[in-house]
Amino acid sequence: MAITVVGSVAYDSIETPSGRRERCLGGAATHFSLAASFFTDVRVIAVVGEDFGPEQEAVFKKRNIDIQGIERAPGKSFFWEGSYLDNLNEAKTHTTDLNVFASFEPKIPEAYRDSEFLFLANIDPVLQRRVREEMPDVKLVAGDTMNYWIKDHRPALLEVLKGLNILLINDTEAKMLAGNNNLVKAAHAVLEMGPRTLVVKHGEYGATAFFSDHSFGQAGAWAQLHPFRAPALPLEEVVDPTGAGDSFAGGFFGYLASQPELTPATFRRAMFYGSVMGSFAVERFGTERIQALTRKEIDERFLLFRELTHLD
Amino acid sequence: MAITVVGSVAYDSIETPSGRRERCLGGAATHFSLAASFFTDVRVIAVVGEDFGPEQEAVFKKRNIDIQGIERAPGKSFFWEGSYLDNLNEAKTHTTDLNVFASFEPKIPEAYRDSEFLFLANIDPVLQRRVREEMPDVKLVAGDTMNYWIKDHRPALLEVLKGLNILLINDTEAKMLAGNNNLVKAAHAVLEMGPRTLVVKHGEYGATAFFSDHSFGQAGAWAQLHPFRAPALPLEEVVDPTGAGDSFAGGFFGYLASQPELTPATFRRAMFYGSVMGSFAVERFGTERIQALTRKEIDERFLLFRELTHLD
Repeated sequence: MAITVVGSVAYDSIETPSGRRERCLGGAATHFSLAASFFTDVRVIAVVGEDFGPEQEAVFKKRNIDIQGIERAPGKSFFWEGSYLDNLNEAKTHTTDLNVFASFEPKIPEAYRDSEFLFLANIDPVLQRRVREEMPDVKLVAGDTMNYWIKDHRPALLEVLKGLNILLINDTEAKMLAGNNNLVKAAHAVLEMGPRTLVVKHGEYGATAFFSDHSFGQAGAWAQLHPFRAPALPLEEVVDPTGAGDSFAGGFFGYLASQPELTPATFRRAMFYGSVMGSFAVERFGTERIQALTRKEIDERFLLFRELTHLD
Repeated sequence: MAITVVGSVAYDSIETPSGRRERCLGGAATHFSLAASFFTDVRVIAVVGEDFGPEQEAVFKKRNIDIQGIERAPGKSFFWEGSYLDNLNEAKTHTTDLNVFASFEPKIPEAYRDSEFLFLANIDPVLQRRVREEMPDVKLVAGDTMNYWIKDHRPALLEVLKGLNILLINDTEAKMLAGNNNLVKAAHAVLEMGPRTLVVKHGEYGATAFFSDHSFGQAGAWAQLHPFRAPALPLEEVVDPTGAGDSFAGGFFGYLASQPELTPATFRRAMFYGSVMGSFAVERFGTERIQALTRKEIDERFLLFRELTHLD
């Protein structure tokens, strides 16, 4: 089943202990859609500037990603410059030029309207909500956000959360959103805000899913629904963490969308596929590794993740 | 098979966000032996002062732990005072009174000499090495250390590492010991120092085991021996993290010692039992939770850990 994703398509200049890249293709919707495209059909809603050309288009087309929803606007694309020199777990932002993104008004192509899955990548919650409302019939909605929206745009974000089935954020964001420093208590508080399921990404330590009592449509099943933890791969070199979380989301949601039914078992596998895609994403700069990836490599790493965590 | 453990038996005054306790029974050898006692026979080598009385003895005896190797010396027992008010992952030490521990000369009772397993808890590496040399026939030796010995007693510590089969330390210690901020590279460097297996404890994120090519006596098996990651339990309240690492080590090594053979499968289960014992340890102050624990609770939590991590 097809996923529509709304979010940023951008250029990133990135510096890490492994080196520096100028203006790589990036943005949450880019990382998400490339990762998800290994599992299902993906349709992107975004805005780019005149600097987005055939070379960038080709990256999406090669993965059969539908980009008729990527609007071209006069001006430059969203640009981000950041470094991870001291800490690979946290980017230091040097420049954020919203450019054409500043006046982004998401428009949903007619051909996208039968999408059964919707992913609201990290953008202004006002836009997330608008897209959500324009696609009322989707089967499953997941979304992401970040500290900026949690701190300074809370009322708008809380409205978005009410319309989400699954929220994917990191430890710091979950604790900030809940105002509680204990992850489990924070998770329960976030689940009260709307999402039936919360996936908390722990960077190099994997991710944990927390469920509310309606996560799988069975009221009262909560007592059996303990959290589920997917590992991350211990890596000798994290070349560039940019987009790891979006690649996780793409692998996770892409796998879910490829399955006939949402069950605890498919959810667990989806968590593993999310971790798998995140582990590939960081192996090279920007989208380089995911662009070069094969389904065979994904399946092999899935088995490796199983071996990394399973008793037998 | 019996484990001999050498380490501290102490009194701890602890303050955490959950409250404060004065002079609880603590020390690495205490936490280790209580946790290991649920799996196998445990024998303790330590020194205590005149403040160690029948009440403290009873804690060990109730768990059938052999304490004839706990020497009584004139003076007071090792005393530690610390708090975790800002950060449950890192203790802030307020007082360390070595007391009788300052002149500790480990003496191994005759009855301990047939122990097949030896655990060198976190003490002066000079003493760790002496005990190791006096028990040359043990089947498996594991040990722990801490930042203080890594930084200021490195040559003595490196001698200890040469005689260890398994080293259990935390992320910060592994990176400090190797002088490398990447965990995988640090692990490989530590494995070069002697231990055939390194278990890195990640606190609330569980623990990862790294193997060298001789971990299970099969040269060349390394290519198959990917790391193994055990989860930690997401807990609503960490009452007191003191002794969590020692309880992990006790569950881990206790389970290994209870098994007829060291195989990858028993090693994996041992990692889970370590995490299980660590998860109980932090639920109350000091040794309170482990003292009240039953084997049934341990087995139930083991199954919960399986559910928390396994695909089906």
